[in-house]
Amino acid sequence: MFEYRLEASEGFARAGRLALPHGEVLTPAFMPVGTYGAVRGLHPAEVEASGAQIILGNTYHLHLRPGEETVRAMGGLNRFSSWPRPMLTDSGGFQVFSLAGLRTIEEGGVEFTSHIDGSVRTLTPESSMEIQRALGADVAMAFDHVVPGQASWALAEEGMERTLRWLDRCKARHAELDAGGWVLGAGENATSPQPPVPSPQTLWPIIQGGVHADLRMRSLEGTLARGPWTGIAIGGLSVGEPKPVMHRVLEGFAGALPDDRPRYLMGVGFPEDLIEGIARGVDLFDCVAATRNGRHGSAWTSVGRVNIRKATHRTADEPLDPACDCATCSRFSRGYLRHLFVAGEMLGLRLVSLHNVRFLIRIGERARTAILAGEFSSWSREWLRHYHPRGDA
Amino acid sequence: MFEYRLEASEGFARAGRLALPHGEVLTPAFMPVGTYGAVRGLHPAEVEASGAQIILGNTYHLHLRPGEETVRAMGGLNRFSSWPRPMLTDSGGFQVFSLAGLRTIEEGGVEFTSHIDGSVRTLTPESSMEIQRALGADVAMAFDHVVPGQASWALAEEGMERTLRWLDRCKARHAELDAGGWVLGAGENATSPQPPVPSPQTLWPIIQGGVHADLRMRSLEGTLARGPWTGIAIGGLSVGEPKPVMHRVLEGFAGALPDDRPRYLMGVGFPEDLIEGIARGVDLFDCVAATRNGRHGSAWTSVGRVNIRKATHRTADEPLDPACDCATCSRFSRGYLRHLFVAGEMLGLRLVSLHNVRFLIRIGERARTAILAGEFSSWSREWLRHYHPRGDA
Repeated sequence: MFEYRLEASEGFARAGRLALPHGEVLTPAFMPVGTYGAVRGLHPAEVEASGAQIILGNTYHLHLRPGEETVRAMGGLNRFSSWPRPMLTDSGGFQVFSLAGLRTIEEGGVEFTSHIDGSVRTLTPESSMEIQRALGADVAMAFDHVVPGQASWALAEEGMERTLRWLDRCKARHAELDAGGWVLGAGENATSPQPPVPSPQTLWPIIQGGVHADLRMRSLEGTLARGPWTGIAIGGLSVGEPKPVMHRVLEGFAGALPDDRPRYLMGVGFPEDLIEGIARGVDLFDCVAATRNGRHGSAWTSVGRVNIRKATHRTADEPLDPACDCATCSRFSRGYLRHLFVAGEMLGLRLVSLHNVRFLIRIGERARTAILAGEFSSWSREWLRHYHPRGDA
Repeated sequence: MFEYRLEASEGFARAGRLALPHGEVLTPAFMPVGTYGAVRGLHPAEVEASGAQIILGNTYHLHLRPGEETVRAMGGLNRFSSWPRPMLTDSGGFQVFSLAGLRTIEEGGVEFTSHIDGSVRTLTPESSMEIQRALGADVAMAFDHVVPGQASWALAEEGMERTLRWLDRCKARHAELDAGGWVLGAGENATSPQPPVPSPQTLWPIIQGGVHADLRMRSLEGTLARGPWTGIAIGGLSVGEPKPVMHRVLEGFAGALPDDRPRYLMGVGFPEDLIEGIARGVDLFDCVAATRNGRHGSAWTSVGRVNIRKATHRTADEPLDPACDCATCSRFSRGYLRHLFVAGEMLGLRLVSLHNVRFLIRIGERARTAILAGEFSSWSREWLRHYHPRGDA
């Protein structure tokens, strides 16, 4: 369980298999984001049919609504949301650090104001582990200190060092919870013992250090020194820094990452980011852009972005992307999709979101095929040559 | 084509088969409403899987967005919206008459102000036929004059007589369009000849007369005198009058309706309305309540209405309706559905809408089975005994 097997590599690019309690994940792979236990606007059967092997749940959002106790009472996030395949939950850290002006960071943890009801709450390394254990995903993420993309060396060092200290606390609490006999650390039911969610769960650490190569390397070394992790995440990228900077950071430690563990680049990305990330040794990605852009009528296609709301699509009979095999492209015209958006009919949001999700998943599938065939370098160069990130949007 | 075959009857209740260009409709049947060429929030594959045999499109809404010329250029409403089965379009009359303060009624037609862009437009018996022909549904509806549910005898007579005069004009224009060589009567492309949508289309008249039995009978006689219609609709009910009054009106002319034509009760209804309507000889129904209520979290179940937003459902593991065979009830718990609504996740709207659509369709299916078995009277009595229209909502 939780084993990763490297099948092939080409440069830094890798193809592998990750065994998780709810199934196997063939990498590289994009993980759609299911904020509230549902990939926005999509039915789990649609997400499954799109080829998604694993989806992500947001600890911050699920803690606020419906609350982890509700999810646990309903048998955990997989059962609650009727998603049969692997899941990963983030730690909530990224969300609470994004609540600028609404949170206070201390060594103990983060005090924040709920964006739902204004209540003051606390998230700590320990409570993040407790919440994630109650949610019961296959993979829990460490509670880290995220700094902005342009953070100074000093600020990035502070966040990175705190992330290491918090990792110790996450690891200790996660091990306690795993050993059973645990009770909740926070909330109204804190003293009522409840049975733990039965499915095994692993904990992945997060590399921080901003855009500073030396800090990233120290973060990696400090992290590896703290345990035999089953996977390693890279956080604090795609948070405002220029893309070439992100690429440089990834290249900086790609050679130092252990070969036998999956690498997860958090919060990334756009289609071209997946290609660039895979080329730099990344195995897993997640990002809300697929569904967020989809809800705004912005679709990725093999030649670039398409804004389906544009009047030029009014009587366009062709699909969003003639080269796409998704359920939307195989049935609906651009003209109909544009009409749905103009009329405010929610089927439109759903169909374009579904297309975008499939678009990213297929990049993972095709990159994998290319790596296994030793053709990733030429395939990715060709892909990037045809794709125009700006498109018509 | 357009033939209706009566298979069995029990009292006024009927089971039959209606042959339409896009397929056969087994009656009694509920027609989901696809306002903008999509049943709100639902994928055509979901609507088809729910057992829908025919859906309705709104001429008023489709005329404003995307416009009938766009639909025609895209090959008609079936092809445009990727709906392979029969369709019916209303005349737009009900919508423009509902625009109180925004429309002027004259013998020629109705001048109204678009709720989209404030533009002043006109709908006439002729232009309604032209728009519906461009949309290309299997069944077009006559452009009628609808009066409020509590309209006086004099007002109801005026609307009923005008509906008959307009029926002559609808019939004439529809025949011209059917004969081919027609051009558009309105809009910027009025003079550019375009090929008619190829699929055959029939025209159904609408009985008016408010709640007044004598006017309803005159309307029916006047309508039957005007042509060998392939179906007959009953309009102007469920528009504010008490339900017993609607039942009395239906009973008043149920015996006078021709046996060999389908009867369509427009804009009805709720589950109990279908049962009561079928008992009074109705074959077809349509209503937006299934999807509108669904979007507000109000679900019909075999024991009555359930408001899924209620806190009592927070950790409820059972489906909306344990007796339901819909795709929602077979996979999702009340607790999860409540969570989706509380979190504002649009999957919730969709899942409850889908349940409600299937709920009405299944009433048609079960009523049909009961009528064919000669058990409608006992089945419907039992159904109504268990169902509480108010429920917990």
